Amino acid sequence: MAELIGNLLVAQSGGPTAVINASVAGVITEAGKHENIEEIYGGLNGILGILNEELVDINDEKRSTIEGLKYTPGAALGTCRYKIDFKKKPEKAAQDMDRLFEVFAAHNIRYFFYAGGNDSQDTSHKIHEEAVKRGYDIRVIGVPKTIDNDLPFTDSCPGYGSVIKYNSATVMEIGIDAGSMATDSGSCYIIEVMGRSAGWIAAGTVLAKRGDAAKPPHIILLPEVAFDEAAFLAKVQETVAAYKYCVVVVGEGIKDKEGNEVGADKTRLDSFGHPVLAGVSEKLKDLVQERMGFKTRIVLLGYAQRAAGHFASATDARNAFACGEAAVRAAIEGRTGYMVKIVRQVTDDGVITWGTDLQLLSEVANVEHLIPREWINEAAFLPNEKFLEYAQPLIEGEIQVPMEAGLPKYAVLEKVAVEKKLPARA
Amino acid sequence: MAELIGNLLVAQSGGPTAVINASVAGVITEAGKHENIEEIYGGLNGILGILNEELVDINDEKRSTIEGLKYTPGAALGTCRYKIDFKKKPEKAAQDMDRLFEVFAAHNIRYFFYAGGNDSQDTSHKIHEEAVKRGYDIRVIGVPKTIDNDLPFTDSCPGYGSVIKYNSATVMEIGIDAGSMATDSGSCYIIEVMGRSAGWIAAGTVLAKRGDAAKPPHIILLPEVAFDEAAFLAKVQETVAAYKYCVVVVGEGIKDKEGNEVGADKTRLDSFGHPVLAGVSEKLKDLVQERMGFKTRIVLLGYAQRAAGHFASATDARNAFACGEAAVRAAIEGRTGYMVKIVRQVTDDGVITWGTDLQLLSEVANVEHLIPREWINEAAFLPNEKFLEYAQPLIEGEIQVPMEAGLPKYAVLEKVAVEKKLPARA
Repeated sequence: MAELIGNLLVAQSGGPTAVINASVAGVITEAGKHENIEEIYGGLNGILGILNEELVDINDEKRSTIEGLKYTPGAALGTCRYKIDFKKKPEKAAQDMDRLFEVFAAHNIRYFFYAGGNDSQDTSHKIHEEAVKRGYDIRVIGVPKTIDNDLPFTDSCPGYGSVIKYNSATVMEIGIDAGSMATDSGSCYIIEVMGRSAGWIAAGTVLAKRGDAAKPPHIILLPEVAFDEAAFLAKVQETVAAYKYCVVVVGEGIKDKEGNEVGADKTRLDSFGHPVLAGVSEKLKDLVQERMGFKTRIVLLGYAQRAAGHFASATDARNAFACGEAAVRAAIEGRTGYMVKIVRQVTDDGVITWGTDLQLLSEVANVEHLIPREWINEAAFLPNEKFLEYAQPLIEGEIQVPMEAGLPKYAVLEKVAVEKKLPARA
Repeated sequence: MAELIGNLLVAQSGGPTAVINASVAGVITEAGKHENIEEIYGGLNGILGILNEELVDINDEKRSTIEGLKYTPGAALGTCRYKIDFKKKPEKAAQDMDRLFEVFAAHNIRYFFYAGGNDSQDTSHKIHEEAVKRGYDIRVIGVPKTIDNDLPFTDSCPGYGSVIKYNSATVMEIGIDAGSMATDSGSCYIIEVMGRSAGWIAAGTVLAKRGDAAKPPHIILLPEVAFDEAAFLAKVQETVAAYKYCVVVVGEGIKDKEGNEVGADKTRLDSFGHPVLAGVSEKLKDLVQERMGFKTRIVLLGYAQRAAGHFASATDARNAFACGEAAVRAAIEGRTGYMVKIVRQVTDDGVITWGTDLQLLSEVANVEHLIPREWINEAAFLPNEKFLEYAQPLIEGEIQVPMEAGLPKYAVLEKVAVEKKLPARA
């Protein structure tokens, strides 16, 4: 095993989750056990902050703060949606890489851990390739993170279990409320959740049904299934006829048969060049009200769903922490250019144990994992038993977040800056 | 004290809350202690179900189910938005009253408890007046309930503490998430909460700040304060300049200087004749994006906020239960035509104890309690210290909801029907 002595840098990227900090806590905790790792630094706001040489010294953080990261939502180190884009902006990308390795060298960074989703794993992969090309000795390991659950190879993505636990509880509660107000005139409730091209988040709310067809959600619209207006309205009608009300969960990115996003505002793009979505629930509401005359109400969970630390999944948080630990162990063992993945093992009597393994970043980057077609019962507008079997274990267990005067008491990093050694970024 | 022997009927009305069932549990628990109360019935879907003689026998419910009502959201007996409207529909209203007293007489109902908000207290008041006029011996006591917190005389309304606890946690969590993504280009987050004419719910989210000006929410827009577009945009600009992001909480019913609701769709009315509101957050989003160019995201909590039993306030739930108990005790003592109100007592060393008292329904009905003007710091777009002092105690304490396979396990009534004795309603 090749020995490598130097400093560690951990950073976060992309949209935060309820457990992304648990992975950072895992990295920090494991790093403390290895003498080859000298200093533990955090990079502020992902790659963007690192390019600006904005590093903080984790050794200046209280132990209780690191412990608190296990249940604190948001990205404690700050995050970014910055892409090193060799295809569209090759010159800028080459400059960025030069700068990045200047920062690495200036601070003797030999271990780099980047927690993020598809785009961030791609960034990690590029950094790994650059390091090889440049002959700069560094171990680069991607830590999986995304509520979207669309990273390939891993059983699930840290953040996903928590978002579907919170969303399922929310759908259950809205359903109880809505059901208790149901009248003969019929009503419809549309709950919009995140999920641009993968329907994992929307699908996960099927857990709220607890196996009872009468219980919400009655209809789940997934980006993987082409939106059929007539079939949808017929299903709403059928549901209201049966139960007097209908709860619909819709993933923000559902598309019609032509592949057009039902809620897309094509005039605006995010920094990765994806169209910004908004308004699918408004569109469905107008449709149901105009065509069927049912009173219709919307809930748009937005950032609330991915930040709901007060109702995160203990299983998810444990797996997130384990991914951080595993990333450091792998690097210490000499691995680089890998992403940690979660592995589920089921014993003969159905007991699940969770472990981790590694997958080459080259195989992970930019591959999007959608819900398997055979897990969706299209006619019923619902994921089926196979999906349930997969998703149920991910929401097990509750984290006890400490409370202060009636509200969660989350951890906040001191963020003591590491002294800069380079001139400011050009 | 006049003795009155007979049956009890309890029902729920209007929009549910996280703790409306706790009040029903209080009624049932207290009723069990008094021999003068023979049968305990629940009326399904409020007045509407009672008119249809849809009563259920509470004695057929398990004790554990009644216990479970203390933490179960929604209206366990069902609810309605039905108004006995003597002004607009005098003939129909007279028919309804005749029918109601037929049902009361047929089932020897001598104790009637109605949990609801302003409109429902008005209904209770009318029933009380009718009983006096008809010489039908019944004790009618209103039980307060509304997330809107706009009933007069009571310290607070059961349901309010829970909605602001959940909303504050949500604003805090969204703020942590949003803050960790903040970049120099600036971003804005608009969280729309309930509150048609009273801003209590929006104001309550100020608790998420924990006294720190830098923390969200940075701006709270209340229906009580005329919306000033220029001042709002200036405040957003100032906030983004200071913190790179801005979290705005807006009550759905904010109005401009002319009194027009910013988010009103005047073409639709609910069954009480109020305009249905939708879209104030969309309007603010468009405004901020167009005028300031900040990336803007919306969260629309809708029914999720009032049904969030998984994060209800223990103080609120206890007060809700106590209101139910107090209603029965008052009726047993011979009172009728009253609403129970919550009374707060503060000792010299600042310890708060909660009690109940009674207020004449004639004084309560249709009076709307808004936030006192001196509790709002208009220039700062925030409620002030006086509001904080009022609201903070209402969110104290957490209810431990039993969990099953990762989700709350809420109580469901068996709803065993009481045999009908009357012909169907005309």
